[in-house]
Amino acid sequence: MKLPQGFIGAATAAGLKSSGASDLTLIVNQGPLNWASAVFTTNQVIAAPVMWSKEVIKGSTVHAVVLNSGGANACTGTQGFQDTHKTAEHAASLLQQSSSEIFVCSTGMIGEFLPMEKILSGLDIVAAKLVNDSLSDCARAIMTTDSIPKISTVSVSGVQMSGIAKGAGMLAPALATMLCVIMTDAVVPLNANNLFENIVEKTFNRIDSDGCTSTNDTILLMSSGASQVQLTEVEFASMLQEVCTSLAAQLIADAEGSTKTIHVNVRNAKNEQDAVNVARACARNNLLKAAIFGGDPNWGRVLAAVGTADAFMNPLTIDVSLNGVAVCVSSAPAADKNLVSFEERLVEIDINLNVGEHSATVMTNDLSHAYVHENSAYST
Amino acid sequence: MKLPQGFIGAATAAGLKSSGASDLTLIVNQGPLNWASAVFTTNQVIAAPVMWSKEVIKGSTVHAVVLNSGGANACTGTQGFQDTHKTAEHAASLLQQSSSEIFVCSTGMIGEFLPMEKILSGLDIVAAKLVNDSLSDCARAIMTTDSIPKISTVSVSGVQMSGIAKGAGMLAPALATMLCVIMTDAVVPLNANNLFENIVEKTFNRIDSDGCTSTNDTILLMSSGASQVQLTEVEFASMLQEVCTSLAAQLIADAEGSTKTIHVNVRNAKNEQDAVNVARACARNNLLKAAIFGGDPNWGRVLAAVGTADAFMNPLTIDVSLNGVAVCVSSAPAADKNLVSFEERLVEIDINLNVGEHSATVMTNDLSHAYVHENSAYST
Repeated sequence: MKLPQGFIGAATAAGLKSSGASDLTLIVNQGPLNWASAVFTTNQVIAAPVMWSKEVIKGSTVHAVVLNSGGANACTGTQGFQDTHKTAEHAASLLQQSSSEIFVCSTGMIGEFLPMEKILSGLDIVAAKLVNDSLSDCARAIMTTDSIPKISTVSVSGVQMSGIAKGAGMLAPALATMLCVIMTDAVVPLNANNLFENIVEKTFNRIDSDGCTSTNDTILLMSSGASQVQLTEVEFASMLQEVCTSLAAQLIADAEGSTKTIHVNVRNAKNEQDAVNVARACARNNLLKAAIFGGDPNWGRVLAAVGTADAFMNPLTIDVSLNGVAVCVSSAPAADKNLVSFEERLVEIDINLNVGEHSATVMTNDLSHAYVHENSAYST
Repeated sequence: MKLPQGFIGAATAAGLKSSGASDLTLIVNQGPLNWASAVFTTNQVIAAPVMWSKEVIKGSTVHAVVLNSGGANACTGTQGFQDTHKTAEHAASLLQQSSSEIFVCSTGMIGEFLPMEKILSGLDIVAAKLVNDSLSDCARAIMTTDSIPKISTVSVSGVQMSGIAKGAGMLAPALATMLCVIMTDAVVPLNANNLFENIVEKTFNRIDSDGCTSTNDTILLMSSGASQVQLTEVEFASMLQEVCTSLAAQLIADAEGSTKTIHVNVRNAKNEQDAVNVARACARNNLLKAAIFGGDPNWGRVLAAVGTADAFMNPLTIDVSLNGVAVCVSSAPAADKNLVSFEERLVEIDINLNVGEHSATVMTNDLSHAYVHENSAYST
């Protein structure tokens, strides 16, 4: 699979993963444009590569991004930051660019130093074999506990937009983090930055696997402009929405330990933020998520979760449907809950607050034995 | 075990629990004082007995409390409220009191109607056998998935204060809720209401088993004044603090599915609320709690949880000790984490923010296979 025009990349097994799988990738934007934008984790404790890349992105120019799995380089102090700096310097010298325009992402275990010799010699290897036909290779190199690589490509009227992502919805041993790189050969509209942030807010920020926020999460968007096609705001937003929606859904579908994908759909809230708050309160409720894992149509747990949300509501007018069965009307028992079927992987929880006209959906997954196992049995 | 002077109680198996265990209790305050105060769940979705009792407590006078397990009477609409009203009316007629001074608490499954015939005939039974020597019986009748009754009694200079509580830290199948009744024969100080709320805030509100807030939580404090001993504010606060601390610790120790009790101690925060926010962010972090279950000294998950808290911090100056081992200093690796022992049930997580002088502790428990099992495998 090819990267969009103007992008070349490569990946290698630098030896960071004990499994011997590929763990280092370099993606270079050859231009003519080198425009970029990024969204980072909201965690106050951020990894060294996030500190570095937050500075890089201020100039809106990125020539290349280095991504490694097998180590988050988070909570590693001054040495960790120096290691990220060295990584950027080395990539810059190989590409004859300024290190201040080299973006860096890391993912893996927190609180351990990166094996810098392996990273620097790995960079020598990938820099020597950069090709346009490397989308799959790059997607594989950023995987941690993902079972499959996550890729989404949209091509419309001479323009390609492709994204790769990793992350098992924060569900990995030792906080595997969510990383995403989206590339396009389009010339993006002037307002691309704002459109990007809005779309991330309604896609990646509407998946919530276990409520945990990592130290390394990064979403990078790069444009080469190599197609010479200028997108309108509507065209750009449409393509980006499609790529982000697809990647976000792929992340939740591969959430570790999950047996169900849950869509929490909130309708008729007073405003959109209230709808999001109610949906997120459900998405983070362990009791509800364990009930879904057990195939138990215990709608009382939905209402108990709804009631904890910071949102305007009338506690006596809430309707709940589980997979289309209206088990609760006006906050009281309605249809027989034994009619609810949980045979499919997808579970739809529809919550009607009946106090306004705004809606939102948050995607999550169930709380399973496998989640506890994955996050307790391994010390890596 | 005796109730404080002026109190009589009794319990029976009214048939609400399929196990045949006792499930209905009546506690009567014979005075001469009938002062009471209560603290309720912060959930916006509240059960019928909470709606009722919130009205009762406005008068600060309570003659008796009816508590049932085997059904929460939550999300039961108009009929549910009428059922609570009937319960209070029936108890009032048996005791020749006003129903507006009868407090009602329920706990159990949400979204199901109470079997009112069983409750009303059960009330006839308990009203006929009220005795002072019934503390254990009352404590047993409010149990749901608790493995043991929770009782705390303090006697100081002619005054007795006794509390009973139930709840497995919100960890029970179908949202078993936390109920607590505290009784004293002391004449309480004028400021008792505020002192009570402050002590609840620093005891029951500093345990957080799984972040879930129920629809029925209630803590009721009643004074009979029968000892005729007037307590000073300091004496009263001291006794109440001891009872509440003991009951809160008993709840976490019996949290369903838990194998570890975790004390999250935050020091040197800018203010107390920040310290609580940081401690609570850790207490609610599934990744961290699963790591503790697995005996994994993965301190990176502590920092990742700390960073999500709404609190002032310097992300580069955080120290973390696990069971006394300083695994992280200035947000970077320090002592060898393999030195940490998790052999004991109690796990101490000490977090030094180094930005102020305030501290707080939140008690929680680990996230285990048994938690998922208890909350997914049963549909009751």
